[in-house]
Amino acid sequence: MSAPETRILRFQNDYSWAGVEREAYKHGQEAGRAWKEIVRQVLVGKQAEETGFHLRYFEIAPGGYSSLEKHGHAHVVIVVRGRGRAVLGATAHDLKPLDTVYVAPWTPHQFLAVGNELFGFFCIVDAERDRPQLVSAQEREGALGAGAIVDFA
Amino acid sequence: MSAPETRILRFQNDYSWAGVEREAYKHGQEAGRAWKEIVRQVLVGKQAEETGFHLRYFEIAPGGYSSLEKHGHAHVVIVVRGRGRAVLGATAHDLKPLDTVYVAPWTPHQFLAVGNELFGFFCIVDAERDRPQLVSAQEREGALGAGAIVDFA
Repeated sequence: MSAPETRILRFQNDYSWAGVEREAYKHGQEAGRAWKEIVRQVLVGKQAEETGFHLRYFEIAPGGYSSLEKHGHAHVVIVVRGRGRAVLGATAHDLKPLDTVYVAPWTPHQFLAVGNELFGFFCIVDAERDRPQLVSAQEREGALGAGAIVDFA
Repeated sequence: MSAPETRILRFQNDYSWAGVEREAYKHGQEAGRAWKEIVRQVLVGKQAEETGFHLRYFEIAPGGYSSLEKHGHAHVVIVVRGRGRAVLGATAHDLKPLDTVYVAPWTPHQFLAVGNELFGFFCIVDAERDRPQLVSAQEREGALGAGAIVDFA
């Protein structure tokens, strides 16, 4: 794949970008992780772009959540749409649009849509990164105390 | 400087983030480049964060513009606030919030606030990157034809 030319990804009113695939992860559960009602769009990272990072937009439907996990790479999250909650370690934080989160390496984290709105955010990561891992039993207890969800209701 | 902990940069209604410095570049001109009425906030990149990228927010006042330049690293720009214009090579593009621009290496580029509003955007770059360079005489002609500004009015 050759590197792309300069281009503009046009935002559309349904929070999609022209030419970017919407990848739906309706729900899933495996090996101690669960997630629900997430759509991912990869704006930068699938076209052999010449950046050392990827830019993704995630949107979580009301009642949905990302999986509780940790990894050695840092995340940067920028809230774009709606209200949501981040469980970071053993603490919950309410988030509003344009709040920006630096998730340091190995911090257990989960993002949840807590209201009646879609909760959307950009997530920027290094192109080269390790895979997410399960949190420890102790970390899991802490996150559960902060409102994390690890099993389907 | 030790790497920072996980933290939330809280967005404030004046488009600043709590704890982030607003660096104002009122205007300048040097060695064939000019810029005007820009404020920069570095959200990620000054605290020894463990990311291979930096996240900055630029805001350009009405009538202002970034310098016309090129470099070997790619830019990713996400429009946040107001309307603006990007000159990319010899073409002008109007931009609205959440339009996202991939600026490939060596593309001459300038961002301009064209309306009566502040024009604000995130710019994500690799932490390790080359310095901006002047465009060639031919590139300058092309950019001028697309509405670029290279001297103070």
